[in-house]
Amino acid sequence: MNVTVLGAGAWGTALAKIASDNGHEVTLWGRDPALLASISQERENKRYLAEVPLPGSWRFEPDLCRSSQGADVLVMAVPSKGFRDVLRNLRGFQGTVVTVTKGIEFESGLTMSGVLESEFPDAIPVALSGPTIAREVATGMPAASVAASVDSKAAILVQELFHRPTFRVYTSSDVLGVELGGALKNVIAIAAGVCDGLGFGDNSKAALLTRGVAEIRRLGVAAGAKAETFTGLSGLGDLTVTCFSPLSRNRTFGEKLGEGGQLTEILAASRSVVEGVPTARSAHHLANRLKVETPIVDEVFLMLHDAKPVKAALQSLLGRDSKHED
Amino acid sequence: MNVTVLGAGAWGTALAKIASDNGHEVTLWGRDPALLASISQERENKRYLAEVPLPGSWRFEPDLCRSSQGADVLVMAVPSKGFRDVLRNLRGFQGTVVTVTKGIEFESGLTMSGVLESEFPDAIPVALSGPTIAREVATGMPAASVAASVDSKAAILVQELFHRPTFRVYTSSDVLGVELGGALKNVIAIAAGVCDGLGFGDNSKAALLTRGVAEIRRLGVAAGAKAETFTGLSGLGDLTVTCFSPLSRNRTFGEKLGEGGQLTEILAASRSVVEGVPTARSAHHLANRLKVETPIVDEVFLMLHDAKPVKAALQSLLGRDSKHED
Repeated sequence: MNVTVLGAGAWGTALAKIASDNGHEVTLWGRDPALLASISQERENKRYLAEVPLPGSWRFEPDLCRSSQGADVLVMAVPSKGFRDVLRNLRGFQGTVVTVTKGIEFESGLTMSGVLESEFPDAIPVALSGPTIAREVATGMPAASVAASVDSKAAILVQELFHRPTFRVYTSSDVLGVELGGALKNVIAIAAGVCDGLGFGDNSKAALLTRGVAEIRRLGVAAGAKAETFTGLSGLGDLTVTCFSPLSRNRTFGEKLGEGGQLTEILAASRSVVEGVPTARSAHHLANRLKVETPIVDEVFLMLHDAKPVKAALQSLLGRDSKHED
Repeated sequence: MNVTVLGAGAWGTALAKIASDNGHEVTLWGRDPALLASISQERENKRYLAEVPLPGSWRFEPDLCRSSQGADVLVMAVPSKGFRDVLRNLRGFQGTVVTVTKGIEFESGLTMSGVLESEFPDAIPVALSGPTIAREVATGMPAASVAASVDSKAAILVQELFHRPTFRVYTSSDVLGVELGGALKNVIAIAAGVCDGLGFGDNSKAALLTRGVAEIRRLGVAAGAKAETFTGLSGLGDLTVTCFSPLSRNRTFGEKLGEGGQLTEILAASRSVVEGVPTARSAHHLANRLKVETPIVDEVFLMLHDAKPVKAALQSLLGRDSKHED
C-alpha cells in the first residue's frame, strides 16, 4: 500500500518505520522542510527520534497536498492544535485516514476522528491508540495497540498495515472510547508526574491511576463510549505506560511542575507538544457540559489554567473524603 | 486500642508503626526472638525495614499465645505458607482479625480470611490490602488502601485504627475480591518483572498489566468476588504498583529470572518471601477447577513449576492470537 504519514514527530516517524518495515511505500510530510531534508540525508530523525536508523526508501514531501496524492492510507500524526488546519490545507481525502493524535478540540468537544469527519465526510476514520512509547516501538521492543473504526474493514486494513510480531494491532469498533482514553490519560499522567515531582512515591501514583481509570471511564461513558474500552489497551494500558514511563512527555512535564518549575518555562523548553495541557481544558469543559464529576481533570485544569499551587491540588486529590469503595 | 501484630516483616512493622502513630498500644510478635530483641534495642527493623526509626513504646513478645492476650485487634502479617500454623499455635481468638497476607492456600483454594474462618469461627476477619509498598508507607509517603469485611462495623474499626492523613483507608464489603486481587497481582507482577529482565520495555509491561487486570477479574468473579473490586485500589491499584515499583519483591524476582537467573538461587538469596511463587501454583489450580482461562497465570506457573524457559513463556503471552478487543 501507499501510506502517507503527516507529521514527522516521534510517533509519526515510528509509524512510518513500521509501515515500511512491513513492505509498504511510505511518504512523509512534516511542517518543517529542514527537518524532512535532514531525515532524508541522515536517515535518522535527530530532533524527535535520535539514534534510530531509518530506511532509505521513504519519499519526503514538504508540500502537504502533493504528499497525499496517490495515498491509499493517510496517517494523521500532527499535534491536536494544528489538526483541523492540516485537514483544511489538504483540501479533501477519500479513503482510510488513521488518526493517532490524542486530544479533544475545545470548541467542539470532538476527538480527532470527529474533527476529521466534520472536514472530510468521505474519509473513513480509524483511530490507532495504545501503550506505545514511540522510541520503544521504533527500536523493535514488543508493544500492542488498538485500531478502532465503525467500518470494520477499515480497522482490519489498518491492522494489516501495521501488524508485526513486535507490534500487535487489535481491532475495535469503539472509536470514541479509544480516542477519549488516549486523550484523557495525558491529563491523569500530568497529575501522576506532579506526584513524582513532589516525591510522593509509587503508592500514591498507583492510587491516582486507579481513580484516573474510573474518572476517564465515567466521562467517556457519559460522552457515548463503551465502559469496557477504558480497561483495555487504549485506556488502562496507555494510562499505565504514560504514568510510569520516564519517556512519557506528559508525566515528565508534570514531574517538572511538581519539582517547582514554572509552567511557561517548562513548556517553552519542551521540544514536543504536551497534549495534556490543552486536553485538561477541553476535558474540564466537556465534563462540565456532561455534568460528570472529574476531580483529577479539575485539579489539573486548576493547576495549569488557574495557577493553583500543585501541592495543594495534589493533596486535595489524595485526601478526598469518600470512605467506602464499593 | 490494644493491637497485636503477628509478623515482624516489612509490612507488619510498617502497620505496627502506623497503629502506634495513631495512638494505639502495639505488641509485636515475630518468629525470630533475635529479630524482636534487635528491633527493641535499636528501634529499627534492620533486617526488613532498615533506616526507618520506630517508636520506643512497643511491647515485644516472642511467645505467640501471650502476644495476643488482651488484644482488641489482631493483625496477621505472616507469610501465607505459615498462616494456618500460626493460627493453630495461637489456639483461638475472638474479635477482629486483620489479614494482610496475600496468598491462596493450595489445598483448599482459600484466601487468608477463609483460612482464618476455618480455624477461628468466632473471629471477625477484615482484609486490608492496596497499593502499599511498606517502605513508602512507613516513611509517611501518601498511600491508600481498602479494609474489607462482611461485618461493616469491623471494617470501620480497622479503618479508624489505621486511617491517617498519609494513609487513607477505604472500606469495602467484598473480602474475597480484595484478597484475590492482592494475591493474584503477585503472579502478574512476576511476569512483569520477567518482561523487565528481558528488556522488553514499558509498552509490553503495560499491555501485560492490562491483560492481567482482565485475567484476575475473570478468575475472581468465577470464584464469587465482585467484578468492580478488581479495578479498585486492591486490584488495579496494587497490581500497578507491584508491576512498576523497584521496591516490589515479586517484580524484582521476575526481573532476575528474566535476566537469566536460576529460580532456586534467586529464591535462596531473597531475604523475604516471594508470595507470587506459591500463588502461581494455587491460582493455576484454582483456575483449572473453576474452568477459567488464565494465560498469564498459566505461563508463570509453567516457568516456576515446570521449568519453561522464561523468554518462550513471555513471548507466547505477548504474541497471543486474539485479534479483536471489544
